[in-house]
Amino acid sequence: MKFSETFIPTLREAPADAVIASHRLMLRAGMVRKLANGLFAYLPLGLRAFRKVENIIREEMNAIGSLEIKPSVVAPGDLWKESGRWDSMGEALLKVANRTGADMVVSPTAEEAVTSIVRDELSSYKQLPISVYQINTKYRDEIRPRYGVMRGREFTMKDAYSYHVDEKSLDETYQKMGKAYRRIFQRCGLAVMPVSADSGAMGGSGSEEFMVGSEIGDNILLLCRECEYAANVEKAGCKPDYDAAAPAAADAPPLEKIATPAARTITELCAFLKTDAKTFVKTLIYRAVNVELDLSNAPGCALLKRVRPAPAAPTVYAEAFFAVCIRGDLDVNEAKLAAALKAGGVSLAADADVERLTGAPVGFAGPVGLTALPVVADETMAALSDAVAGALEKDVHYRRVAYGKDFSPWLVADVRTVKAGDRCPACGGELYEKKGNELGHIFKLGYKYTKSMNARFLDENGASQTPVMGCYGIGVDRTLASIIEEHHDDAGIVWPMSVAPFHVVIAPVKYEGAVKSAVDAIAAGLEKSGVETLVDDRNERAGVKFNDADLIGIPFRIVVGDKNLALETPLVEVKRRGEREARLIPVDAVVQETAGMVFDELVKVG
Amino acid sequence: MKFSETFIPTLREAPADAVIASHRLMLRAGMVRKLANGLFAYLPLGLRAFRKVENIIREEMNAIGSLEIKPSVVAPGDLWKESGRWDSMGEALLKVANRTGADMVVSPTAEEAVTSIVRDELSSYKQLPISVYQINTKYRDEIRPRYGVMRGREFTMKDAYSYHVDEKSLDETYQKMGKAYRRIFQRCGLAVMPVSADSGAMGGSGSEEFMVGSEIGDNILLLCRECEYAANVEKAGCKPDYDAAAPAAADAPPLEKIATPAARTITELCAFLKTDAKTFVKTLIYRAVNVELDLSNAPGCALLKRVRPAPAAPTVYAEAFFAVCIRGDLDVNEAKLAAALKAGGVSLAADADVERLTGAPVGFAGPVGLTALPVVADETMAALSDAVAGALEKDVHYRRVAYGKDFSPWLVADVRTVKAGDRCPACGGELYEKKGNELGHIFKLGYKYTKSMNARFLDENGASQTPVMGCYGIGVDRTLASIIEEHHDDAGIVWPMSVAPFHVVIAPVKYEGAVKSAVDAIAAGLEKSGVETLVDDRNERAGVKFNDADLIGIPFRIVVGDKNLALETPLVEVKRRGEREARLIPVDAVVQETAGMVFDELVKVG
Repeated sequence: MKFSETFIPTLREAPADAVIASHRLMLRAGMVRKLANGLFAYLPLGLRAFRKVENIIREEMNAIGSLEIKPSVVAPGDLWKESGRWDSMGEALLKVANRTGADMVVSPTAEEAVTSIVRDELSSYKQLPISVYQINTKYRDEIRPRYGVMRGREFTMKDAYSYHVDEKSLDETYQKMGKAYRRIFQRCGLAVMPVSADSGAMGGSGSEEFMVGSEIGDNILLLCRECEYAANVEKAGCKPDYDAAAPAAADAPPLEKIATPAARTITELCAFLKTDAKTFVKTLIYRAVNVELDLSNAPGCALLKRVRPAPAAPTVYAEAFFAVCIRGDLDVNEAKLAAALKAGGVSLAADADVERLTGAPVGFAGPVGLTALPVVADETMAALSDAVAGALEKDVHYRRVAYGKDFSPWLVADVRTVKAGDRCPACGGELYEKKGNELGHIFKLGYKYTKSMNARFLDENGASQTPVMGCYGIGVDRTLASIIEEHHDDAGIVWPMSVAPFHVVIAPVKYEGAVKSAVDAIAAGLEKSGVETLVDDRNERAGVKFNDADLIGIPFRIVVGDKNLALETPLVEVKRRGEREARLIPVDAVVQETAGMVFDELVKVG
Repeated sequence: MKFSETFIPTLREAPADAVIASHRLMLRAGMVRKLANGLFAYLPLGLRAFRKVENIIREEMNAIGSLEIKPSVVAPGDLWKESGRWDSMGEALLKVANRTGADMVVSPTAEEAVTSIVRDELSSYKQLPISVYQINTKYRDEIRPRYGVMRGREFTMKDAYSYHVDEKSLDETYQKMGKAYRRIFQRCGLAVMPVSADSGAMGGSGSEEFMVGSEIGDNILLLCRECEYAANVEKAGCKPDYDAAAPAAADAPPLEKIATPAARTITELCAFLKTDAKTFVKTLIYRAVNVELDLSNAPGCALLKRVRPAPAAPTVYAEAFFAVCIRGDLDVNEAKLAAALKAGGVSLAADADVERLTGAPVGFAGPVGLTALPVVADETMAALSDAVAGALEKDVHYRRVAYGKDFSPWLVADVRTVKAGDRCPACGGELYEKKGNELGHIFKLGYKYTKSMNARFLDENGASQTPVMGCYGIGVDRTLASIIEEHHDDAGIVWPMSVAPFHVVIAPVKYEGAVKSAVDAIAAGLEKSGVETLVDDRNERAGVKFNDADLIGIPFRIVVGDKNLALETPLVEVKRRGEREARLIPVDAVVQETAGMVFDELVKVG
């Protein structure tokens, strides 16, 4: 293809709002253009690379027997009401009423649509397992889209869904997906970190996230220096850093009340009491919404009403408050807390609520004598036998507080934020932190959708059963952008061969006369061998062509000039993008040699 | 691929609302399922055929140098306000506000998005022509979606857009598109009628529709029995069936007023006056909206205000009334009338408006003495010199009415509905009518979007110019459904090879033992040759397998049974879908022979 016949509007500078490399380079290389905040158009060069990523995903999905389907992008709102997500998904769900007033969504994902199709066709265990996928447009109404296609509002996702007679069958498909995902990212030239979503050791996991390290990553990952443990901070656990066999409560000295005027923060209290934050009970009052846990026996919750926000949604408490106790040197991880409470979300309670529930100003909450709301204790609490805690009274604290003696929590859970330096839950090695972007996710969904949407099949004994479900996503745009993040230099993109929009660019010094004839012959030979070739036929200086070739990142550049062509053995220059030195190759051999190198790399990665 | 490993939920019966063959068969063959009114999901078999149609279109677009791009499906409403279509498109445009309150549309087409991209990159005539296309999801909020994917709300369209320095360059691309469209439909096995959108003879047309004949077609086409003339009734013209050189007005006898009590319809008047409908002036009062014509010198319109509904939209009269006169035996075609008035739409005026404007009850309108509104005369009017017309008075008509003597219209235009039996405007042959569905449309758009959205380039002399634009669409789903409409029989679909979801189905009588081994070997051989093969490995009776093979329409069926395999020269049965007789072929030869037949047909069509 000739440069003059394509549409590759390269730019010297990217707009100021493009702060990450992939965003800048996709704009500069003429791969994409912004239509509006979070909405992009792929131009021809960008789409060529995009389709290659898409096809790698498609090939690997087909290879494990997942079947491609194509549900509509605009989906009926009724299905989302059935699953309960019409309400629970919040403002990220783009809702629209059509002209007849029917509720619709612009799909951000398709659990509902696919489950409704499978439900209608499913009758017997013989039809299972079913594994289907789509590679299709999605919309998520991000409040703050940024970083180009890395975090846009509209994007393309490969989303697969599987249905099974039992957990064992689900696990088989889940394992296959995990392997396919590893091959996909490897073929794309990406080093991904498969991150366990379990807080414990590896294996038997019900969820795995595929992360790439990224300075602008919106996930904090905890990785072990010794073993392969890797987890999202929202799930990460650590080896206990306390003596789990704490002194029995009976041996502990009695509670003491002490005045702590002018000392409200833990640091101030430590200084005042000449002690360490590790001996403090930090008590935080949280407000949780849409709590699925049964609170009927929880202190202060007897009068809370359970509601069902949508016909098939689970019953929830719309709002409930909890006192969360954790060791003074640690932080509560709100994602872990929300998971422990089976809550739609948690946030620190307003000051007025804190004062109402604890009967004291903010800063003096503690678990001792607290009856207005349930106490949730982090696992670290159980080791405290001589601790300091707020006394529910202004300027007063307790000391000699012991777990089990002075207070007994309603719920014990692991809600601590694991940090760099903590110990690996699998091997005890030191954990370190890294920021990451999630490119893919495989997840054993269980019965959430099949139950709420009433999918059923008859098992071998003729008994009606609910199938168990898995879901598996990959963001195509984000994968493409991440490839550029990992493969670029100061001059531009350095495409891995597998996803390069063209394999070879031919840059004639001047596209005329003998040079033109040689270029046309080389291009025709390469195209015939299946090498995708771009001929820069523009009437531009060689420097401009070289800069653009580097910017758009084509793996091989062939330079054809009249001097080298006029030699006894006519030569052309072949340079690998990212390498400094070019090789001189006889013009008669260049097609075969270049094609050989291109296919070597395709096979190597593939 | 094994039948048991795919997901092809065939049905014996289609739901009652599926009234056309393609809708019934796509449901029965497990190709699609309905998610909601006008919204469908393609299942694996349907998607395989869909992708083949899509790829034929893609190959032919690439072959003429159009470049594939991918704008977002959700598009910013601001662009639609710039072009004026935010208001003018009406309720078919699905509008949605995102969480920040920004107006968005779910794109039904992409003139705005593509023009905005080209506008931002365009500077010089050297960049032109540009031709780009997408094959992407579209949404049109049809008030009454039906006939399955033939007329759904969400659909996939190939839409191309081209930009040019002048009309000559536009015409070159337009001609190439026309040829590509003919190849696309031919490769899909469809006999399309390219229908001129000009009312005159062929050639130099600015718009061409690609129609397939269909009983449920929403277009009426006029075709000539003698030549290739074909036109949509909304545009069709005909040879004058009157003496254009009518008697001069001066020679005509004077006007006469006659009482016509109890005769209000043309039929009643013909009986009463013992004459023919051809001598009547039928006068209809129309209300037109968003009229772009300049009405400042039109009777009764001096006080009408021109408005600009959107910043860049053309100025229009929001509402205006017209008296339309046509020969008594003819009907007004409202699409032609709207085009002549450059109106957004026309409809018969309400009775109250008729009475107010004509000063008489409904039924007595006529052009003589009518001053309250402009008179639009069909071309047939000019031949009338002794006609009957309403006298703007209850139970009174004029006779001896002559054009030019008794009335002079404000505008003369061709607004008649051409009918079967009328004469071809190109050759004078007899026209006949056919219902058709539009699969594609190529259109010289002119300057509508480039002007309203202010796209500019510098020409060779450095002068700023507006590029001229073309647009070119094909409905992918509708094309697929039309293929089934044309290629099916009582047993099911009869796919053309080029778009068949599989080329061959192998139906073992029982998939076990020697039969299984033979089937697996044949399937492996076919797949290796590039023949897409479905193995019906289900534990079902042969009859069930044969019925499903016929229903899903795979071009070749190979039956492998133990009796034929046990012969000295083991044989298998090969049958072409749609033919009655099977051939017996030695098992050793079946791969080569079948692959040969498959590729012969692929080449023949391609």
